[in-house]
Amino acid sequence: MGNCVQSTKDFFCGPKNTNIRISLPAVCFVWQIAMIILFGVFIRYDEESDVRLWEIFKREHNITSDIENDFYFRYPSFQDVHVMIFVGFGFLMTFLKRYSFGGVGFNFLIASFGLQWALLMQGWFHALDPATGKISIGVESLINADFCVAGSLIAYGALLGKVSPVQLMVVTLFGITLFAVEEFIILDLLHCRDAGGSMVIHAFGGYYGLAISWVLYRPKLYQSKRLNGSLYHSDMFAMIGTLFLWMYWPSFNSAITDTGSGQHRAAINTYLALASSVLTTVAISSMSQKTGKLDMVHIQNATLAGGVAMGTAAEFQIMPYGSLIVGFCCGIISTFGYLFVTPFLEKRLKLQDTCGVHNLHAVPGMLGGFIGAIVAAAATEAVYSREGLISTFDFEGAFADRSVGTQGGFQAAGTCVAIAFGVVGGTGVGLILRLPIWGDPADDNCFDDEVYWEVPEEDESIPPVLEYNNHMVYKHQDITESNFSVEQS
Amino acid sequence: MGNCVQSTKDFFCGPKNTNIRISLPAVCFVWQIAMIILFGVFIRYDEESDVRLWEIFKREHNITSDIENDFYFRYPSFQDVHVMIFVGFGFLMTFLKRYSFGGVGFNFLIASFGLQWALLMQGWFHALDPATGKISIGVESLINADFCVAGSLIAYGALLGKVSPVQLMVVTLFGITLFAVEEFIILDLLHCRDAGGSMVIHAFGGYYGLAISWVLYRPKLYQSKRLNGSLYHSDMFAMIGTLFLWMYWPSFNSAITDTGSGQHRAAINTYLALASSVLTTVAISSMSQKTGKLDMVHIQNATLAGGVAMGTAAEFQIMPYGSLIVGFCCGIISTFGYLFVTPFLEKRLKLQDTCGVHNLHAVPGMLGGFIGAIVAAAATEAVYSREGLISTFDFEGAFADRSVGTQGGFQAAGTCVAIAFGVVGGTGVGLILRLPIWGDPADDNCFDDEVYWEVPEEDESIPPVLEYNNHMVYKHQDITESNFSVEQS
Amino acid sequence: MGNCVQSTKDFFCGPKNTNIRISLPAVCFVWQIAMIILFGVFIRYDEESDVRLWEIFKREHNITSDIENDFYFRYPSFQDVHVMIFVGFGFLMTFLKRYSFGGVGFNFLIASFGLQWALLMQGWFHALDPATGKISIGVESLINADFCVAGSLIAYGALLGKVSPVQLMVVTLFGITLFAVEEFIILDLLHCRDAGGSMVIHAFGGYYGLAISWVLYRPKLYQSKRLNGSLYHSDMFAMIGTLFLWMYWPSFNSAITDTGSGQHRAAINTYLALASSVLTTVAISSMSQKTGKLDMVHIQNATLAGGVAMGTAAEFQIMPYGSLIVGFCCGIISTFGYLFVTPFLEKRLKLQDTCGVHNLHAVPGMLGGFIGAIVAAAATEAVYSREGLISTFDFEGAFADRSVGTQGGFQAAGTCVAIAFGVVGGTGVGLILRLPIWGDPADDNCFDDEVYWEVPEEDESIPPVLEYNNHMVYKHQDITESNFSVEQS
Repeated sequence: MGNCVQSTKDFFCGPKNTNIRISLPAVCFVWQIAMIILFGVFIRYDEESDVRLWEIFKREHNITSDIENDFYFRYPSFQDVHVMIFVGFGFLMTFLKRYSFGGVGFNFLIASFGLQWALLMQGWFHALDPATGKISIGVESLINADFCVAGSLIAYGALLGKVSPVQLMVVTLFGITLFAVEEFIILDLLHCRDAGGSMVIHAFGGYYGLAISWVLYRPKLYQSKRLNGSLYHSDMFAMIGTLFLWMYWPSFNSAITDTGSGQHRAAINTYLALASSVLTTVAISSMSQKTGKLDMVHIQNATLAGGVAMGTAAEFQIMPYGSLIVGFCCGIISTFGYLFVTPFLEKRLKLQDTCGVHNLHAVPGMLGGFIGAIVAAAATEAVYSREGLISTFDFEGAFADRSVGTQGGFQAAGTCVAIAFGVVGGTGVGLILRLPIWGDPADDNCFDDEVYWEVPEEDESIPPVLEYNNHMVYKHQDITESNFSVEQS
Repeated sequence: MGNCVQSTKDFFCGPKNTNIRISLPAVCFVWQIAMIILFGVFIRYDEESDVRLWEIFKREHNITSDIENDFYFRYPSFQDVHVMIFVGFGFLMTFLKRYSFGGVGFNFLIASFGLQWALLMQGWFHALDPATGKISIGVESLINADFCVAGSLIAYGALLGKVSPVQLMVVTLFGITLFAVEEFIILDLLHCRDAGGSMVIHAFGGYYGLAISWVLYRPKLYQSKRLNGSLYHSDMFAMIGTLFLWMYWPSFNSAITDTGSGQHRAAINTYLALASSVLTTVAISSMSQKTGKLDMVHIQNATLAGGVAMGTAAEFQIMPYGSLIVGFCCGIISTFGYLFVTPFLEKRLKLQDTCGVHNLHAVPGMLGGFIGAIVAAAATEAVYSREGLISTFDFEGAFADRSVGTQGGFQAAGTCVAIAFGVVGGTGVGLILRLPIWGDPADDNCFDDEVYWEVPEEDESIPPVLEYNNHMVYKHQDITESNFSVEQS
Repeated sequence: MGNCVQSTKDFFCGPKNTNIRISLPAVCFVWQIAMIILFGVFIRYDEESDVRLWEIFKREHNITSDIENDFYFRYPSFQDVHVMIFVGFGFLMTFLKRYSFGGVGFNFLIASFGLQWALLMQGWFHALDPATGKISIGVESLINADFCVAGSLIAYGALLGKVSPVQLMVVTLFGITLFAVEEFIILDLLHCRDAGGSMVIHAFGGYYGLAISWVLYRPKLYQSKRLNGSLYHSDMFAMIGTLFLWMYWPSFNSAITDTGSGQHRAAINTYLALASSVLTTVAISSMSQKTGKLDMVHIQNATLAGGVAMGTAAEFQIMPYGSLIVGFCCGIISTFGYLFVTPFLEKRLKLQDTCGVHNLHAVPGMLGGFIGAIVAAAATEAVYSREGLISTFDFEGAFADRSVGTQGGFQAAGTCVAIAFGVVGGTGVGLILRLPIWGDPADDNCFDDEVYWEVPEEDESIPPVLEYNNHMVYKHQDITESNFSVEQS
């Protein structure tokens, strides 16, 4: 039995092997082939994207112009969301000095896998035709798939630099699955409204990532400390991500809201909340330094908190000043989070959160859920009109008699469900990821693209020859060995 | 009295203090709180974004489909303009080797503040309901707010690297205010057309920035000369800004024009003028160097001159070849400006224009105003049709009897008003900014992010150890002290 | 005669002169002036962008709302395509360590010229009104012009770093001309469908560039080998290009398809194929390295193969799982191409393909043509409905009796026409480019921005002074001479 214990210990505590030459291709192939089979069995075009069904649909609904196709209502917003997912999230995670390839590249990989799995999972829960057993997809499904992926990309933010791409595929597989279930509970069973996903995307994704990171705590992570920071240029790349997220967030929050005034209002509210966040983020960031200098970490992240927090309430009549107040408060809270909470979490709770998703997604998402609850509960017929209340909160069918107060209660309950799913699901997935088969890096090897990427050997090609009293001091090759090379890039 | 003079002199000429730990947060908080209060008092959703009013509006106007909501006419263009404001202007100003954080970051700050103030200022002048005392906002208001902000961002281009963020907030506060007034005079009183803002945005913004820069002349700016230039990578970041401005300029000029053929035509005209600008910019840039080499400064800036100059005429029937001619001439003029006028302004007129806004905005904007006047005066009923003339030039109400010739005269007058507002307003704001309370940098400290930003200390983390005959020559820490660090990034 | 031979030999084999101070401006001016004259003679607004004609058009077609203007159907897609052309292609070609200016800058130049020439060439073939002799342009013309330019930009990918900007202007002039002719043959005479241009854009452009590169083979290119590679940061810039191409490819393939379900379906299919490509690219890339590391070249390029290969079939009812299969296979094929075919081409066929356009455009484009043929031939009335078949394949007028089988045959024939035009046209253009008058760089001077650009001399401004035992070892100026400077940027 001692042998058994020993071999178990070896299995779990042996030296890390980051060779993923078999596991990564295997996972990619198996899962992609599974997607093809499942898509073949289940997924079809919906009535607005199938050439035959669209003609029938037009006839049945007396539609005279193609402009009434949902494509023209939602495609521009879809593309904005798409940019947020791949360039926004991707480049936001390039801030580390030697993990930019991993930041944008693994984001690309898991989002591409995730959106396929999301179309299936969300389809089974929301769009399965019981008669045919098929799922119909259209542009709104694509937006929802991108949204669903966002949850897992948020979780990646907490894990950045500390996990292997194979682990990220597992995080995404379970993340999408959990997302679809919690979304079904929150939107369908509790009948909450959450168009921009404060609850279902941000609170869930944030706590999911934090829980995984907590389970995967690395006590010796300080061994990689030299790489856990930014460079001047990597901060600039991250700003590309920040700005595309910031600019397109109004599209994120309005992409799947009610057409007409719903999308219009959601865009306005988000635009205002984000603008307000920027000012309070700058204020707190400047206050936190001796001479009032600004910190790029705050500017890159906390400026977005207003958008996260408006995810639920954006489509409601929160009023323009209400949006400004939300952004005002969340900019402050999020920046304080970066200043005090992240260090606290790391020291006291043993929770290493690389990108600070706690401050950008988890807390603002949770707040957004409760803000939505309050705004819903405060809705009045005077402001919305009777039909406006019905259309905004979908008080139809089984929910025709629900009052706004009850709705507010359910919204708050939905927020708690999202957090619970994140914490419990993340803990479970974290335990799976502790198996020593995933090729994750050792503690002194984190935040380093060299582990999973062919990093260009930039030095051998342009050897600089430095002169010292007309003698060559060194050739550049020597520098390479001492890691000088990557720093320069 | 001698003491008084002395203390006044000390006050104005003492050593610069760039500590903004109190002033910047104070300005941000005070102004953001003021925004919240004023929004609470004045700003409401308009009839297309308010759920109750939209239902009424649809009924009153016999609208059967939500696609008729203004959101679907203008939101894609709005998002393009939004990208131009934050990524376009922001990244265009990252070209300096050590002021990229300031370029993109302060642009972010002042645009976020400015758009809120613009919604109020433009609302008071254009959208105040006299009955309720409220301002109604919709997607077109957001576009106009972004436009209004553009004027101040252009002014920032002339000041880049030489002012503090607090000064920039002041520049923006007054810039937006002046903008709203001149816009009211030009568009409402003079009844000019200026959809893409050659006059109200570019000519005004350009001269506003130049006048401020002239008042803030720094005779010893050569002390920062080492930082007033670009790096290979900072030029690449600036190209991101250039290209997003260039690509989306058709949306800028068409965003608020008449729906239907108006937006369509404005986009085509701008697209063509921009393409033409690129070729003449390249030609002049190549001619200006001994061996025909191109200069990135020209490519980054003068290629955009065609878009600026089409700001007024884009919605008119200037004809495709007319657009090409405008781009052709403005590419040449703008590149000549960078080659000869900017150095001349600095040496003779004591005007330091960091980004060359004189050549990119002030002059092409002024020309655009006059081109608009000529094209308007040349409009004929044969080309436009009677109803086309009325809709294009808004010859309705009090202006029903205006002839196209008169319209041309007023367009020219409008251009002069814009320039006058820029020059006079900028001089005044410049004088305010000379007060020694704003935390601006000393002459030997300009163009340096270290002053207002926590710049990553990239060196301590990956110390390269260079070997010379097997002895360590130096550790990287030594380099840090000699500014080697930032250069590498 | 010996003298004659000798002087001919000198003419062709003398030392390279890269001075383009006369030729580049001359070409730009002559061609831009020619464009202005030809536009003046031929180009007019179409009935949806001319203010007078639009009013008539609305009356004739009983259109009550401006939203029916083609602008609102296609402008968002146009802008996405526009971003792909300038940022997508431009930044994808910035991956070389010292040729980023040339990658994005010359792309900008030739696209700007090309789109003007494309409006004329495509107009003469497709939109010339025989009555008036005029070409009418609208937003769809702009999209087609951008598409047409894409062919030449793809060709640039094979030539990157080895040609002068004057040569590129020639490549573009002939490329656009050949494109318009082959497009006329394929789309009009053979009546193929090719909305996303697998055949007319990618197969043609790819083989066109490869043929030129083959004729311009440089046996001593190894002399520039030190510069033919990437840096960490230049790879990040290239990822900007990759991602914008990847994200907006659904817009590329749907931009000019049938309105309604056609655009909707094309976007869905492309979205899925691209996602699938990413997974197989990652899998093969990882398998190809000893420890499973990923190669940025594959991620930057092969992930896009699914979009290329869906260019023809995207608008057909290929079914979601069909799209996944296309992406699956093309990701594998394209990555294998980078691993094995590009080295083979260079060694055995004397074909130097800088960006690997063979693997990203030529082969996936050709496959896309044949996939389109198969999917067309497999179309059934049960899936499409009778009217769906007619609208999807334009079985109208002279082609009313064509069967889907015949259509499939013509689609395959169209693919061959595109390849033939590319190979033959490219060979001819390559021979023209061998004339020694174009200012192309010598073999040891390729891939170097210094040849055609004023590269910032970053060193003189921030001299780092390194200390060794308190003695200055060197000033930075010394490093400059040894090329150290650019490497750092």
